[in-house]
Amino acid sequence: MGPGKGATEKDIDNALQLGEMIASQGWVTLSGGTKNGVMGAVNEGAKKKNGLTIGILPNDVVEDHSEYLDVPIITNMKSGRNYINALSCDVMVACGMGAGTSSEVSHAIQSNKPIILLGTDDETNKFFQKIGGNLINIFDNPRDAIDKIDKIFRGKND
Amino acid sequence: MGPGKGATEKDIDNALQLGEMIASQGWVTLSGGTKNGVMGAVNEGAKKKNGLTIGILPNDVVEDHSEYLDVPIITNMKSGRNYINALSCDVMVACGMGAGTSSEVSHAIQSNKPIILLGTDDETNKFFQKIGGNLINIFDNPRDAIDKIDKIFRGKND
Amino acid sequence: MGPGKGATEKDIDNALQLGEMIASQGWVTLSGGTKNGVMGAVNEGAKKKNGLTIGILPNDVVEDHSEYLDVPIITNMKSGRNYINALSCDVMVACGMGAGTSSEVSHAIQSNKPIILLGTDDETNKFFQKIGGNLINIFDNPRDAIDKIDKIFRGKND
Amino acid sequence: MGPGKGATEKDIDNALQLGEMIASQGWVTLSGGTKNGVMGAVNEGAKKKNGLTIGILPNDVVEDHSEYLDVPIITNMKSGRNYINALSCDVMVACGMGAGTSSEVSHAIQSNKPIILLGTDDETNKFFQKIGGNLINIFDNPRDAIDKIDKIFRGKND
Repeated sequence: MGPGKGATEKDIDNALQLGEMIASQGWVTLSGGTKNGVMGAVNEGAKKKNGLTIGILPNDVVEDHSEYLDVPIITNMKSGRNYINALSCDVMVACGMGAGTSSEVSHAIQSNKPIILLGTDDETNKFFQKIGGNLINIFDNPRDAIDKIDKIFRGKND
Repeated sequence: MGPGKGATEKDIDNALQLGEMIASQGWVTLSGGTKNGVMGAVNEGAKKKNGLTIGILPNDVVEDHSEYLDVPIITNMKSGRNYINALSCDVMVACGMGAGTSSEVSHAIQSNKPIILLGTDDETNKFFQKIGGNLINIFDNPRDAIDKIDKIFRGKND
Repeated sequence: MGPGKGATEKDIDNALQLGEMIASQGWVTLSGGTKNGVMGAVNEGAKKKNGLTIGILPNDVVEDHSEYLDVPIITNMKSGRNYINALSCDVMVACGMGAGTSSEVSHAIQSNKPIILLGTDDETNKFFQKIGGNLINIFDNPRDAIDKIDKIFRGKND
Repeated sequence: MGPGKGATEKDIDNALQLGEMIASQGWVTLSGGTKNGVMGAVNEGAKKKNGLTIGILPNDVVEDHSEYLDVPIITNMKSGRNYINALSCDVMVACGMGAGTSSEVSHAIQSNKPIILLGTDDETNKFFQKIGGNLINIFDNPRDAIDKIDKIFRGKND
C-alpha cells in the first residue's frame, strides 16, 4: 500500500524493488490497483519477475488502472475498498504515507494483520506503534522488509 | 467518532457532553451507532436533549446497537462503514483514538472534511497534523469543539 | 425503491402519492436518494406532508441528490448501496421495476424483509413470488400498499 | 454465480462441469468463494484442471471458504459483495437461481455484462429477458454456455 499521486521518488523506487522481490519469492502482489504512485510501481516491479498481481480497484475507469494487473477486482467503492485491501492481504507493507495509506494501516491493525512501515517518518512511526503495538514493524529498505515477511510466513507454518 | 470497547472514562464523558451540546445546537448526531464506548455515549447525550440521532451500523445484530438511535442504517460492512461515516458527516469529531477512529479520521482527510481531535495525545495530534494540515483542529474540552464547529458552519453560510 | 431515469409516469405518480401517505402515517421515508424518477418523487411527496426523509446515496455529487432529503447518507458505493437500502428498511416498496430495483428486491428477500410490488407486470410478479414466497405482496395502488404496511407494523407490535 | 445452500443437484453438477471447462479454456474462475453449493462446485471443477480461482468472500470466516480458492478476497460485506462479483467478471454465468443470484444477475445487467442463465426455469428466463434484453443468453448445458462465452470473447477481440 502507499500513496498514489502523492508518492515521493523514494516511495516509488521502494515499491518497484518491493514488487520485484515479492514476485521473486513466489508471493502474490495485492494492491489498490491504480496506475498511480506506489500502486503502479509495485505492479510494474512484480511483472518484471512474472509475479501474480491482484488489484482491488476503486472504480471501473479502465484508464486509471495499472497495466500490470493480472486480476482486476472492480469495487466501485472508491476508498471504501481500502478495508478490503487490509482484510485480503497476509502482510501489509505501507510504502510511504498519506491519508489513504493511513486508513489502510488502521484497518490492518483492526484486522490484526502484521504491518511493515517502509521509509515512513518519525511522526508516522510513533503514532502507529502507539495504536498498533507489536503488529508494527519499521524498516528503511525493501530487502529488510522482505526478510521480515519471510520470517512471518515461516513462523505461521511452524 | 471514537473508540468502542477501548474508550477511556474521559472519552465517554466527553462524548456524553458532546451529544448534549450537539442536540442543543439543533444539529444532527451521526455516529457508528453501536452501544459501545463513545458511540453509545454520544447518542445517549443527544437524546437527553431530544436531538436527532443517526447510526451507520456495522452489522444487523440489534443487541449491539445503541438504544438511543432514531435512524439505524444497517450496512453489514463491519469497519467498511467507517468510510461512509466520513463521507456523510459535515464535521468529524474524534473523541479519543484507536485503530477504527484512526481509519475514520484518515477517510475524513481524504474527503476534505473539517476534523476536531478531542482529548487525543501528542503522537496522534502530530501525525494527523502532518497528513491532514489545516483540516485538523485540536481541543481539550467539548465546549471549545462545539464553538469551533459553530464557526465552521457560519463560515460556510457566509 | 424504484427506477431512476427509467421510471414510467405511472411509477412517478405512485411514488409521489406513496411519499405523501408515508409521511401522513408518521413513518420515515428511506430511499436511494437521487433526484431521479421514483426516488425524487417519493421524497417530494414525503416533504409535502413534512415527513422525515433519508437518502442512501450512491455518490457525493450533490447535484444528483434529491433536494427533498433531510438526511443524506453518502456511500460512494454506486449500486453497492442497494444492499444497504434493503437492510435498513422495515418494509420495502418497489414502485416499478428495472435492474437496480430488482437487485434491491432480491437483497430484501435475502434479508427476510416484507416486500410490496406496486404497479409491476406479470413477469416480475411471478418471478419474485417464486423466489420470495410469502414475503411478496402485490398491489395496484398506493392506498392498498399503505394499508398492508400498517397491518404489518401492527402485527409486529401485537 | 448460483445458489449456496439452496443449490439443486443439477446446479451442482452443472457448476462442476463448468469449472472444468472454464479452466480448460485457460480462463479465470471468479465466484462468491464460499464452499457452499454452486460456489464450492465451480472452484472444485476448476482446480481439477489447474485453473486459477478467485473468490470474492462475504466474510473472514475461513471455515466457510472453498478449499479450492487460489486468491481469497475478503470483503466482510456479506451480500454487498454481490455487486463486486458483477463488476469484476467479464461474463456472468448464473447456475441456478435464488435471491442472492438474482441480485448478482440484476447488478450484471446494470453493469452491462453479458449473462448466461444455465438451467433456470421459465419464470426466471422471462423476467430477466424483460429487464436485461440482449444481455441475457439462456442455455441448458455447460458446453453450450462455454461455446457462447468463447464467441463473446472472440467478438471482443475482433
